[in-house]
Amino acid sequence: MDLERIEDPTFLKNYSNEELENLAASIRTFLIEKLSVTGGHLGANLGVVELTLALHKVFDSPTDKLLFDVGHQSYIHKILTGRTSQFDTLRQYKGLCGFPKRNESEHDVWETGHSSTSLSAAMGMAIARDMKGEDHSILPIIGDGALTGGMALEALNHIGDEKKNIIVILNDNEMSIAHNVGALHNVLGRMRSASKYHWVKDEMEWLLKRIPAVGGKLATAAERVKDTMKYFMVPGMFFEELGFTYYGPVDGHNFEDLLENLQYAKKTEGPVLIHMMTQKGKGYHAAENDQKDKWHGVGPYKIESGEKIKPTDAPPAWSEVVSETVRKKARTDNRIAVITPAMILGSKLEKFGEEFPDRLFDVGIAEQHATTLSAGLATQGMKPFLAIYSTFLQRAYDQLIHDVCRQNLNVTFGVDRAGLVGADGETHQGVFDVSFLRALPNMVLMMAKDENEGQHLVHTALEYNDGPVAIRYARGNGLGVPMDEELKTIPIGSWEILKEGSQVAILTFGTTISMALEASKQLEKQGISAKVINARFIKPMDEAMLHDLMRQGMPILTIEEAILKGGFGSGVLEFAEENQYFDQAIERMGIPDRYIEHGSVPELYEEIGLTKEEIQSKVINLLPEKKQRA
Amino acid sequence: MDLERIEDPTFLKNYSNEELENLAASIRTFLIEKLSVTGGHLGANLGVVELTLALHKVFDSPTDKLLFDVGHQSYIHKILTGRTSQFDTLRQYKGLCGFPKRNESEHDVWETGHSSTSLSAAMGMAIARDMKGEDHSILPIIGDGALTGGMALEALNHIGDEKKNIIVILNDNEMSIAHNVGALHNVLGRMRSASKYHWVKDEMEWLLKRIPAVGGKLATAAERVKDTMKYFMVPGMFFEELGFTYYGPVDGHNFEDLLENLQYAKKTEGPVLIHMMTQKGKGYHAAENDQKDKWHGVGPYKIESGEKIKPTDAPPAWSEVVSETVRKKARTDNRIAVITPAMILGSKLEKFGEEFPDRLFDVGIAEQHATTLSAGLATQGMKPFLAIYSTFLQRAYDQLIHDVCRQNLNVTFGVDRAGLVGADGETHQGVFDVSFLRALPNMVLMMAKDENEGQHLVHTALEYNDGPVAIRYARGNGLGVPMDEELKTIPIGSWEILKEGSQVAILTFGTTISMALEASKQLEKQGISAKVINARFIKPMDEAMLHDLMRQGMPILTIEEAILKGGFGSGVLEFAEENQYFDQAIERMGIPDRYIEHGSVPELYEEIGLTKEEIQSKVINLLPEKKQRA
Repeated sequence: MDLERIEDPTFLKNYSNEELENLAASIRTFLIEKLSVTGGHLGANLGVVELTLALHKVFDSPTDKLLFDVGHQSYIHKILTGRTSQFDTLRQYKGLCGFPKRNESEHDVWETGHSSTSLSAAMGMAIARDMKGEDHSILPIIGDGALTGGMALEALNHIGDEKKNIIVILNDNEMSIAHNVGALHNVLGRMRSASKYHWVKDEMEWLLKRIPAVGGKLATAAERVKDTMKYFMVPGMFFEELGFTYYGPVDGHNFEDLLENLQYAKKTEGPVLIHMMTQKGKGYHAAENDQKDKWHGVGPYKIESGEKIKPTDAPPAWSEVVSETVRKKARTDNRIAVITPAMILGSKLEKFGEEFPDRLFDVGIAEQHATTLSAGLATQGMKPFLAIYSTFLQRAYDQLIHDVCRQNLNVTFGVDRAGLVGADGETHQGVFDVSFLRALPNMVLMMAKDENEGQHLVHTALEYNDGPVAIRYARGNGLGVPMDEELKTIPIGSWEILKEGSQVAILTFGTTISMALEASKQLEKQGISAKVINARFIKPMDEAMLHDLMRQGMPILTIEEAILKGGFGSGVLEFAEENQYFDQAIERMGIPDRYIEHGSVPELYEEIGLTKEEIQSKVINLLPEKKQRA
Repeated sequence: MDLERIEDPTFLKNYSNEELENLAASIRTFLIEKLSVTGGHLGANLGVVELTLALHKVFDSPTDKLLFDVGHQSYIHKILTGRTSQFDTLRQYKGLCGFPKRNESEHDVWETGHSSTSLSAAMGMAIARDMKGEDHSILPIIGDGALTGGMALEALNHIGDEKKNIIVILNDNEMSIAHNVGALHNVLGRMRSASKYHWVKDEMEWLLKRIPAVGGKLATAAERVKDTMKYFMVPGMFFEELGFTYYGPVDGHNFEDLLENLQYAKKTEGPVLIHMMTQKGKGYHAAENDQKDKWHGVGPYKIESGEKIKPTDAPPAWSEVVSETVRKKARTDNRIAVITPAMILGSKLEKFGEEFPDRLFDVGIAEQHATTLSAGLATQGMKPFLAIYSTFLQRAYDQLIHDVCRQNLNVTFGVDRAGLVGADGETHQGVFDVSFLRALPNMVLMMAKDENEGQHLVHTALEYNDGPVAIRYARGNGLGVPMDEELKTIPIGSWEILKEGSQVAILTFGTTISMALEASKQLEKQGISAKVINARFIKPMDEAMLHDLMRQGMPILTIEEAILKGGFGSGVLEFAEENQYFDQAIERMGIPDRYIEHGSVPELYEEIGLTKEEIQSKVINLLPEKKQRA
């Protein structure tokens, strides 16, 4: 079948299982080929080909609502809803989004990116449906990893109690992004190996049949025990206890099994959980036995060999620099422990785990718990390092405010993927952290100009004993600068002049430093002298340097790869106000007050005007002779 | 026994059960008397008198760590650790904190206020203990309500898997703050009425004994079934499944039962959960049968009658004004549904629930779920109103960013207890919301000058169809102004001039308006003319009015009862910068960059300089002739 001719999934209604199998094979081939060029979430999608086809055959999207938790496994859904031809632009600027997107299709009823939101959203939709007197199915599709997120558990608790008609599709591939952790995982494991339970049930029935038919008390007792046993013997007892009807485990690659269970579920009153067993990477040799989940999100690769096509000689990744510095520090400081919410791979913590297996704690997708656990460690004099993506740290904001900063505990946050992240797009941009961390009392917030300074800042943070520290670092690689052997402490709150200049001062940090330096060089050629300052401490700022600049009345341009409202530039405005530099000229560059979609980082820079050309024009505008009131 | 002479809990080691009972009685009398004057969390503390005594008898604080989840039930712990004499100052300015506080006592090892943090902190402490090779017990004491918070569930999942020695004290009083909700509550209910399980177990044993002793397959089967039954028949199966050893249910008011189970737990390897049944308000007639939990947190009362001593003729509470407006709106708009995270009482939603029982959803202590559920409702064209305290909205920051604002959904947030809250202190101050909400694209943020405008803003929010709206309102009562019959729409982003003035403009909103008006009157007497503007839209701001002021070059003073970093004043600074009003004089007043402890709101205003005197002095400083560079 020509996948590009699919407009909507209604054709599936008449498909036989054999036709479904053929279609599944075509889709796999298509995905393996397309993603070998564009990259994308290959493993997760190969795992849900049959599942997605079965869902669209049994249910009527968009009347019935399919909610893809996390959403990176929605590619087959996109194919079935008429978006095949757009896969060449997958995750590219202005191209097909890698997650469900409501403005792409009416079949995308709920947008995701972060995990564990689908059950709550489904509950909201179910309440709406019942208030409106409508009748349709609502199906959140959630992985076993996402299920351990606190919000998903809150939702399970609510759904099970309210008895709404919701069909939870538990997509159990025994992995979150890497291997799953947590007691719930063990619970699922026992369900998977349901034979034990079935055995007891069979044994029981055999036994009960052999009880002499004496009638009276004995028979009644036997019946009662049988009833109760039935309740206990289902493998999904855990979910049954929470109020769900459990179906499973179901072979998520077997259409007969899938369709039968989905049909049952459709007719069942109250909340249902179908436990689907799927295999990530199914059908692609290189991804099938991927114990380390290297095929979760991939760049381009060679189909035959499964070899990843990577730029050669790239400088080390920021995550690598940071985790390696923590590892180095941990050798001489046994108070250091590393916490990760299911991101051992992403945060490059494998080597740390090999060297210090007892000092690395993967808590699963559980950012709130990770943060407060770190706070607990710190109360006992330990030095926890929490490696967490900027966008996921949003999940732990109250824990930052209430547990860490309020108690002023020595927790170091490695705020990874800070700034624009590119292809993952708006759900994953790490652009709010400067604003939301700067507002917190006691927090030290820093970002390095390059990976050498990065290692020193990690060292500085782990040596600091006066409260929490957050170090931002970008997605991707460092600059390839030489690394000092010896780690050194950088005075908290100290900035650094990178280039002298007499007319305008540019204050910036991290990724935007290089464009500021380039702009400054260009300006030099035009006879304009712009000082460039590495404002590596976003909080506290270098007040001496700020006083110095403002006493001179030097116009200031701030640049940040972060949302402008309440950001670093606002901090500079606040400083000027607090110190009554009323006529200090300040301009700010950064991320405007809207969500930024996917695209390469340079394309996004261009879109929002975070470019060296724009810096030049802003600097010129700030020159005293140009300064004027609007 | 003279409670004031208690310095530490070691004396309990030699106490007999009878002595413990006498002490419990003395403590109850003391609490009922003291709190009748100071107010405080009476019900919760009366429920844990025996439990706290038993914990301090069996364990050795502070070597063994007691972590009080939420922490409002730590009064007995405070008495036993030498703080009895400070109870006259309970929850008062510079007085004894209503929650555990590390600087009060070495026995307070973990500070709380918000719920559901204790398990994560305990896990952190357990990891630290084991890394340091120490050996002591760690005991989080958590209510059945707090257990449904996502973070607590994340922690259960992790603790059960890692098998650390942690003894979870589940204080089950069948209430969170009001009645408990959620499937987990039902699970606990089945554990409480453990007789059913015991019955099955007894029946089973009786049955098995009657099976003819034929040996061979039958006997083996019987034995196997018996073993499995044993596993299933324990009432705490749910927790056993998650990896905990379950003890209970235990009578939390019976010393024999308490001490025996705590002793068992102390010797048990791996995570333990002791299920304690307690009664909130135990021992005080008025509080014992308190179905509506009116004795959770109380002001002064008359001991004999249980009558609350309240100021007469107080204007309506802000929560009441808001919830009544929503109720009024709901009569003609059937898209409106109200969501609350366990705060029906606090948010004054009882009447709404009586009138619209099918449109009020109490999701339990689950702010993340509440927020994303609201988002789900909004995708279906409904108009969810989420009533949530400012301080608890911090728990749902990612849900705001990722689910609500990013999808630009019509969710209205009733941000209750915004600003300083008084006696609950630093964990509960609602001071970060302006900063963290203002940074979010698509969010409209507003606060009314009085309850009449308040009802119009609620109306405006519920009529608005272009995205999320948050309405802040203060803890406590309105001003007692007359209420319009007809609700009206206030144009989004429109400010209001409350008092004309020619020399300085004061921009402020909500609670600080009255002090601004008073200051302005005082200034008038000194011949200084200050305009006062009701900046009821914090975002978007009234840009026309701002342009008008700045074009005139009128100096501006901003005042907000919110943290200054990234707050409303910073928004005004940002506006001046964006529009290149480089020499615009602006000063900001608000909450400084630190946590604010408990005390009456006027005392706290005084402490941070949020007073009409300070406003006057700032205005004078802003007069053109005073304006100078530092």
